[in-house]
Amino acid sequence: MKSGNLVIGQSGGPTAVINASLVGVVQEARRHGEIGKVFGMRWGIQGFLQEELVDLGSEPDDVLEAVRRTPSSALGSCRLKLKDEHLPLVLDVIRRHDIRFFFYIGGDDSQNTTHRVVEYCRTQGYELYGIGIPKTVDNDLYGTDHTPGYGSAARYVALSAQQGGVLARDMQKVDPVCVYQAVGRDAGWLAAASALAKKYEEDPPHLIYIPERPFSNEKFFADIERCYSRFGFVSIFVGEGIVYSDGTPVSGTQTRDKFGNPEFGAMGGASAAMVVKSLACEHLDCRGEFQVVESLQMAGMDRVSETDRHEAWMAGVTAVRLAVAGNTGLMVSFERAPGPSYECRYVAVPLLKVNEGKQTMPDHFIDDANSFVTPAFLDYLRPLVGELPEMGRLSYRGI
Amino acid sequence: MKSGNLVIGQSGGPTAVINASLVGVVQEARRHGEIGKVFGMRWGIQGFLQEELVDLGSEPDDVLEAVRRTPSSALGSCRLKLKDEHLPLVLDVIRRHDIRFFFYIGGDDSQNTTHRVVEYCRTQGYELYGIGIPKTVDNDLYGTDHTPGYGSAARYVALSAQQGGVLARDMQKVDPVCVYQAVGRDAGWLAAASALAKKYEEDPPHLIYIPERPFSNEKFFADIERCYSRFGFVSIFVGEGIVYSDGTPVSGTQTRDKFGNPEFGAMGGASAAMVVKSLACEHLDCRGEFQVVESLQMAGMDRVSETDRHEAWMAGVTAVRLAVAGNTGLMVSFERAPGPSYECRYVAVPLLKVNEGKQTMPDHFIDDANSFVTPAFLDYLRPLVGELPEMGRLSYRGI
Repeated sequence: MKSGNLVIGQSGGPTAVINASLVGVVQEARRHGEIGKVFGMRWGIQGFLQEELVDLGSEPDDVLEAVRRTPSSALGSCRLKLKDEHLPLVLDVIRRHDIRFFFYIGGDDSQNTTHRVVEYCRTQGYELYGIGIPKTVDNDLYGTDHTPGYGSAARYVALSAQQGGVLARDMQKVDPVCVYQAVGRDAGWLAAASALAKKYEEDPPHLIYIPERPFSNEKFFADIERCYSRFGFVSIFVGEGIVYSDGTPVSGTQTRDKFGNPEFGAMGGASAAMVVKSLACEHLDCRGEFQVVESLQMAGMDRVSETDRHEAWMAGVTAVRLAVAGNTGLMVSFERAPGPSYECRYVAVPLLKVNEGKQTMPDHFIDDANSFVTPAFLDYLRPLVGELPEMGRLSYRGI
Repeated sequence: MKSGNLVIGQSGGPTAVINASLVGVVQEARRHGEIGKVFGMRWGIQGFLQEELVDLGSEPDDVLEAVRRTPSSALGSCRLKLKDEHLPLVLDVIRRHDIRFFFYIGGDDSQNTTHRVVEYCRTQGYELYGIGIPKTVDNDLYGTDHTPGYGSAARYVALSAQQGGVLARDMQKVDPVCVYQAVGRDAGWLAAASALAKKYEEDPPHLIYIPERPFSNEKFFADIERCYSRFGFVSIFVGEGIVYSDGTPVSGTQTRDKFGNPEFGAMGGASAAMVVKSLACEHLDCRGEFQVVESLQMAGMDRVSETDRHEAWMAGVTAVRLAVAGNTGLMVSFERAPGPSYECRYVAVPLLKVNEGKQTMPDHFIDDANSFVTPAFLDYLRPLVGELPEMGRLSYRGI
């Protein structure tokens, strides 16, 4: 194989551990003689097109160690959808800097970028070892058991559900309805993570609605009546992308981003949480509250899952190992070893496979009533998130 | 002084440390022979009127210790505004349970409740030792250097500003505008706490707008133009209650709660953050994001300031000591000892004084441009919040 320089970029939304993958690449690259300089793309492929490259190889160890623990995308991110006319320019920059190793950390759009760069170089007879590194808090990336970033965001959501749940219980005489919204356009993985907060039946969250199942006002009203009469309050988690059976979003927004995806929460108008809270309060004739935590759950440095951070770092390490072994056109993926205790295996899938679809929550993770998760999902999730703190509880002994 | 039983209640919005005050009262009460049984009000004065009392004195130590570290109001809260016709009923319950010691943890409305109960008992010739214990994340309670609950909520805001700030920096090519909203109707203490996140000039937040200063679209546009051209993105923190010079709220909501206060954020329609984000994005012709963290910042168990938790516990302890020393009609308050190192003194003010006004941010804490805070405010705030984690930073060395 040809030796040469390495470039790494970050793309798409932030996570709390995407920098761990970046640092994994840099640290592993130093161990391989085939790899010369280690460049970072400023602002992803968008900056690469402008030759905005920085020298990562000379970063001191303590800086790398601090960046490994820092959320978001230290190189700066972009959402540029690569066009065909960009490809010759990409190859120009690759040639000019003698780049043989190309790594791009991101979601499905970013994996597609890497695939197209690799394919274009191949057709032009340029030997490039391009490996995608997965990243998304949404956990909807196809071809992997779970995605780096999800465990930490799920931990943020679960902690919020736990703390916000105690709050909802104690404030029930003031606001009997509490609605929280988690990110996730197509999949309910993050909203579903709120279920970890529940220890006893009366604990929040009481109801979880996710994009995998159509939302129905009639069923929702029956659900909240049942919870309200039973617990005295209703705690609800929704995924931002929940839709009615005809495909209409529950959220009030009709705006779309430049990829044609509807914009929820922080971007658009009335969030799903706001609409669901209004529906519930009107139906139960009571006050309520809603919360849209938004992208802070993607950057919760102090709420990171240590497992997630380690796996994200290993994803970077694995990418380099795959490339120096002569692989290209792959994405690092995670496989769960069979058996009772959790073990993650670092494998790979063809980049093309990743764009075959979105990984939504499978049926056996969603309860029959379509308003909660199953124990099987909690078993899947717990090792990714880690232990949650214990909440103190008074006994409320009468006098 | 007469000996008898003790009752304690919690009222108003939650904080991460209000249970520390509760536990402080219970633990200190056990040390005083004058105090018999220790009762808790379920749902504050609202439950007290229904004689919903629980036995706190028999809670095991480990339960108390766990509750001390648990956010929100373990006894359950209410927002009942006590009416004159309630007072004889309150005294009935007090007499029936031989209560001599009355403690109520809350904000200004709750301090007023304690004042009226104390005064009514006095006019009826019933000897009651009633002490108010302060609590509010807003830090706008009059008569105290700061309020238990503020330090932890400020820490939550500062951590969010730090983490969300890194995110805003790294995502600037996608969303150059980021607006965060902190709670605080009348005072900007929490929004201002975001300033702790800034280490270097280019660090977020760039602009802070608080209710103490009128908001002006023209000045705002000049502010964001300056930041955008200088830093490439704009990070803004707003207090939920910011208003234009004619008193119109910047938020789009016109609804009011039953105390006549306008409802922001989680309750109402368009939050101030949403409006400010739209103004900025339209003016700069770019995308943006806004976040309304809402009451989760009142319950961040894992983001508590240890100083705040200790002081809240001491507020409960002090209340009991004041009462058994024969005091009544007071609120525990905090005084900052003069000198270079931080020291909190536990003193007291008449309950009536608390209702003289709201403690807004003084002029010398707000910068001349009305869009940031002064170093004096940071000196005031740092000891209440504690150290923040360090963020890793790449050097972005060119190649």
